[in-house]
Amino acid sequence: MANAVVSQSGGPTGVINASLVGVIEEARNHPDIDTLYGAVHAVAGIVKDEFIDLTDVSDETLEILAASPSSGLGSSRDKPDKAYVEKMINVFKKRNIEYFFYIGGNDSANTCYIVNQVADEMGLDLKAFHIPKTIDNDLRVTDHCPGYGTAAKFVACALMGDDLDNRALPGVKIDVIMGREAGWLTAATALGKQRDDDGPHLQYFPEKPVSMEKMAADIKAVYDKLGRCVVAVSEGIRAEDGNLWGKKLQENAEVDAHGNVQLSGSGALADFLATEIKSRLGIARVRADTFGYLQRSFAGLQSKTDAEEARRCGRQAVIYSKDNDNGSVAMKRVGTGKDYKIELFMTELKNVAEHTKDLDEKYINSEGNGITEAFVDYAMPLVGDLPRTEYLGNRPKV
Amino acid sequence: MANAVVSQSGGPTGVINASLVGVIEEARNHPDIDTLYGAVHAVAGIVKDEFIDLTDVSDETLEILAASPSSGLGSSRDKPDKAYVEKMINVFKKRNIEYFFYIGGNDSANTCYIVNQVADEMGLDLKAFHIPKTIDNDLRVTDHCPGYGTAAKFVACALMGDDLDNRALPGVKIDVIMGREAGWLTAATALGKQRDDDGPHLQYFPEKPVSMEKMAADIKAVYDKLGRCVVAVSEGIRAEDGNLWGKKLQENAEVDAHGNVQLSGSGALADFLATEIKSRLGIARVRADTFGYLQRSFAGLQSKTDAEEARRCGRQAVIYSKDNDNGSVAMKRVGTGKDYKIELFMTELKNVAEHTKDLDEKYINSEGNGITEAFVDYAMPLVGDLPRTEYLGNRPKV
Repeated sequence: MANAVVSQSGGPTGVINASLVGVIEEARNHPDIDTLYGAVHAVAGIVKDEFIDLTDVSDETLEILAASPSSGLGSSRDKPDKAYVEKMINVFKKRNIEYFFYIGGNDSANTCYIVNQVADEMGLDLKAFHIPKTIDNDLRVTDHCPGYGTAAKFVACALMGDDLDNRALPGVKIDVIMGREAGWLTAATALGKQRDDDGPHLQYFPEKPVSMEKMAADIKAVYDKLGRCVVAVSEGIRAEDGNLWGKKLQENAEVDAHGNVQLSGSGALADFLATEIKSRLGIARVRADTFGYLQRSFAGLQSKTDAEEARRCGRQAVIYSKDNDNGSVAMKRVGTGKDYKIELFMTELKNVAEHTKDLDEKYINSEGNGITEAFVDYAMPLVGDLPRTEYLGNRPKV
Repeated sequence: MANAVVSQSGGPTGVINASLVGVIEEARNHPDIDTLYGAVHAVAGIVKDEFIDLTDVSDETLEILAASPSSGLGSSRDKPDKAYVEKMINVFKKRNIEYFFYIGGNDSANTCYIVNQVADEMGLDLKAFHIPKTIDNDLRVTDHCPGYGTAAKFVACALMGDDLDNRALPGVKIDVIMGREAGWLTAATALGKQRDDDGPHLQYFPEKPVSMEKMAADIKAVYDKLGRCVVAVSEGIRAEDGNLWGKKLQENAEVDAHGNVQLSGSGALADFLATEIKSRLGIARVRADTFGYLQRSFAGLQSKTDAEEARRCGRQAVIYSKDNDNGSVAMKRVGTGKDYKIELFMTELKNVAEHTKDLDEKYINSEGNGITEAFVDYAMPLVGDLPRTEYLGNRPKV
């Protein structure tokens, strides 16, 4: 018998708590796990020895938690170096912890890998498992990431509403979408399109650098045709020189411990684009919104599929820990369309830790400013049903 | 027998289409109404003689429409002068229109009043009825406005999630909320609070001018106590000199035809506040989001009560038109708490047209930076059930 610890790292998502609940409920079935601790604020809580006991959390609390957005144990953006990890291992030893379940993105997979190695060096037989989460959907190996479907649902519903708003009061509307340096979430803004002329009419992804000239020309073409234009732009879009537009705008760009530039939490990119488009095209009504943290932490708007998968991933990590030393849980799609189904498998931490995954070329249209049907087929099962909408203003005049 | 026209004006809401559907379904019961036209883009469509026929829209379409955000007939921000209204009346005469149903805010009530008067002068026996809508909840006479409950639900769910996000990654978070020059919607950001230390911890309303010094001191006090702080700020907040902060920030502030300054569609206020707080308090993590148009046009997130009331208001306008020449539909609360109930009544257009309604003094706490229990009692029935959430990180450490 030994103890286990679970924690959550990086940016919150709408279903990271579902994965946590999966770990908690499966740990109860694991004969070799005694106490399950939750480390508060991830690695930062571990080095400070700040744990709560998750062994006896009530089922009712677990169900509410599984449906709650954000990280129920708190999070951290610390990037542990060797000395930091050694501190962690000493705490693990003191508490007889031999299982480490870490829910996070690729930086967290990397931390998991290092923790597993240093534990080995320090003579602790620690099992270390990574459970994927990110709204950005940029993890390798897995078909998609828990957290993405829920954020995708949010931005799809948002753009459905925003497009109808833009029909009512026409003009150019620019929406800046999260996703860091991958275009997956921006791609999802188009999932709710129902009519031929529904927006977003243009989408710009980090994978396809674009000049202000090209973007303005694209917008002008749509506006000339429809009298309006809705544009979804990734916070991570790059200019043709390869530099992040967002970075260019921030004289003192904030960089986190992992070397990531702070792209969210400011409306600068949206406002810059609106001002540029307004002055270049001479269109009176140009508006811009930055969707911000709403995309990852909105209460009451989970994708059911996403929440179920996140929970399964949490449970599976505990199951893998019975017969394995370390690994990352991944999803494989074994059925498509109405037969959509996933199977879980284990992959090496290194495979997930080192790089991120771009929006696939086959999901981007030839112009580089929209998605393909293949993307809709890929993403719709993750999002689930979207509401239908009606607009009457385009009916024949009498 | 005569024809009728219905249209929608001003900013969209989540239930303005429910009111439209109410007009359409009740017009079918009205023996004296022949064809019901929809004017596309409000008064702008009327002067251009751009109408669609709403008489035979299918029930299925109507139900989807009633659940769709934004204005299904399109909208307009035109402010008709005398010549403009005369053009409208000429179109009405040509089309044998003797009923005018206009869904909008106080500017629309005013338009309705003028249209009714000019029709009289021009010898047209026109019945003109205003149906209230606004997410701002700033119309006089009525207990509350259709559109407010749905927007209130959105911001309540948003702040529930945002507060959990801020627990996970502590710092100062500032959210800029719509509402123009009334604090009703900003007040609603606190409706989802469940725990004593849940945010928003501070709320700033246009009704209570506040200096940067005071706001910074308030934030510091919360941050010193909790290690984090979530702040909801109305887009219409005023400095102590009475001027809009948003206006101060816009060198070339856009003003619409009604003389309203454009407060939405830019992240400038949020970014300004974040920069100020960061430099004044020396707190590393300060983020700001501007919720923007999501608050009024998000697909799939209606308040059920709001949608039902909006529809009733639409139907009632048609019923009033049988025995009255003009008026505005208003709501009166005849039961509170679990017995919440409203009755509809008619008020004069002038009563709604001339002024707006501030957030009531009794709903603002003595410090001017939060709400009272009386506001929760007032607003909760309009929003309906909110999701419950859990956070474990504040449990006792073991």
